[in-house]
Amino acid sequence: MSRRIRITLSYDGTNFHGWQVQPGLSTIQGILEDIISEMDGKPVHVAGSGRTDAGVHAEAQVAAFSIDNPIPPDNLRRAVNRLLPPDIRILDAVETDPKFHPRFDSIAKTYRYVLFRGETCPPFQWRYVHYHPYPLNEAKMVEGAKVFEGSHDFTKFSAKDDRSIERSKVRTIYSSGIERSGDLLIYTVRGGGFLKHMVRNLVGTLIEMGRGNLSSKRIPYKSGNTVPAKGLTMVSVEYPRVTLNP
Amino acid sequence: MSRRIRITLSYDGTNFHGWQVQPGLSTIQGILEDIISEMDGKPVHVAGSGRTDAGVHAEAQVAAFSIDNPIPPDNLRRAVNRLLPPDIRILDAVETDPKFHPRFDSIAKTYRYVLFRGETCPPFQWRYVHYHPYPLNEAKMVEGAKVFEGSHDFTKFSAKDDRSIERSKVRTIYSSGIERSGDLLIYTVRGGGFLKHMVRNLVGTLIEMGRGNLSSKRIPYKSGNTVPAKGLTMVSVEYPRVTLNP
Repeated sequence: MSRRIRITLSYDGTNFHGWQVQPGLSTIQGILEDIISEMDGKPVHVAGSGRTDAGVHAEAQVAAFSIDNPIPPDNLRRAVNRLLPPDIRILDAVETDPKFHPRFDSIAKTYRYVLFRGETCPPFQWRYVHYHPYPLNEAKMVEGAKVFEGSHDFTKFSAKDDRSIERSKVRTIYSSGIERSGDLLIYTVRGGGFLKHMVRNLVGTLIEMGRGNLSSKRIPYKSGNTVPAKGLTMVSVEYPRVTLNP
Repeated sequence: MSRRIRITLSYDGTNFHGWQVQPGLSTIQGILEDIISEMDGKPVHVAGSGRTDAGVHAEAQVAAFSIDNPIPPDNLRRAVNRLLPPDIRILDAVETDPKFHPRFDSIAKTYRYVLFRGETCPPFQWRYVHYHPYPLNEAKMVEGAKVFEGSHDFTKFSAKDDRSIERSKVRTIYSSGIERSGDLLIYTVRGGGFLKHMVRNLVGTLIEMGRGNLSSKRIPYKSGNTVPAKGLTMVSVEYPRVTLNP
């Protein structure tokens, strides 16, 4: 009898070619599928809440898969962690609804993008920040971050090779804000969903606002450059609270 | 006219074969010497305050070298940082006494060793900690850390291949203490000097005290195992305050 397992996992994306399986390349999904398929004695598909790009990190990505093995979820978590490389860790595993899908059931995701604004980036931080010591009007960026809140067509802020070309590019941003913490300028965005490269393009756009090249008063007519993946971290994925039958 | 430059540098030791030049291997000293020799147009020797082992990190290692180039030290720092890999950064560069030697002039060094005591080590921390979730009597370790303070013969706690076989193995430890911070058990030791592998052997010994295999009341008759390099960080090096001639 098949069981649906939901996992929360964290990874340092530096040494992986992103989430999605690609033949011959080391990916998060590929490594998980190899280990779990081996444990279950048959091919197991691991679905993620979203495909993080090569180099993007996750504090709490959510994924799910179906297995026949009757192992208790927490024992499964520990067994898989022993086989995973240290830059991927399963933080939590629970048995869930057989129909649960981490992508289609999610109601919100939060991402963080970090710019390093100091002159010398510590050797312990460079993997997780985008080094940008150049002059920026950060007050304009704080103002500009707010204009993305609400429901908008984000076509201009999606990747040119986004394959979902026929579907709506309207997305809803619940909150979008920037704050300084020491040498770090931290952009945090929470929304119902994101297009490919959207967060990195929003940050590139905020940088152009900070340079004075784009207005921070409204959603600009064009996107700035896509900033490097390594500054981006998936922070959390939210799901509806489960309502028990009365 | 030759000038002596003193630098303070930080590095993530994960991807290096330690401080000391070794033919064909990537080392901190080797990379620095390559860059600075190129800039000065002649071979430049970079002396360090101590040879960190492969995998050991530094928050503030101190090194020095002599160059003919008249470049202001802070410009030199920035130029070298542009050529260094991101896991090595020069934090500070100043012109100093022509006779300054970072090793022989140092009066104290501080090291930190971090044990990860939780069950799941975050993917962003594993490079800097030794994963040790197994039962330990940490109160015994706190007690045991204190017994190393003072001047003692640390022969039993030095590497078997320590080449300085004829010199004294007496070293003075000014402070030696352990504290818990969340999932981390942090050992900090400050002393006049350290033998090869000494800090890692002290930590291995503290672990044996925590296991109840060695007494924590006095310096034990033998050392525990040498713990892995990646948990060790050189925190700082101290020098006498310069007294100006009256």
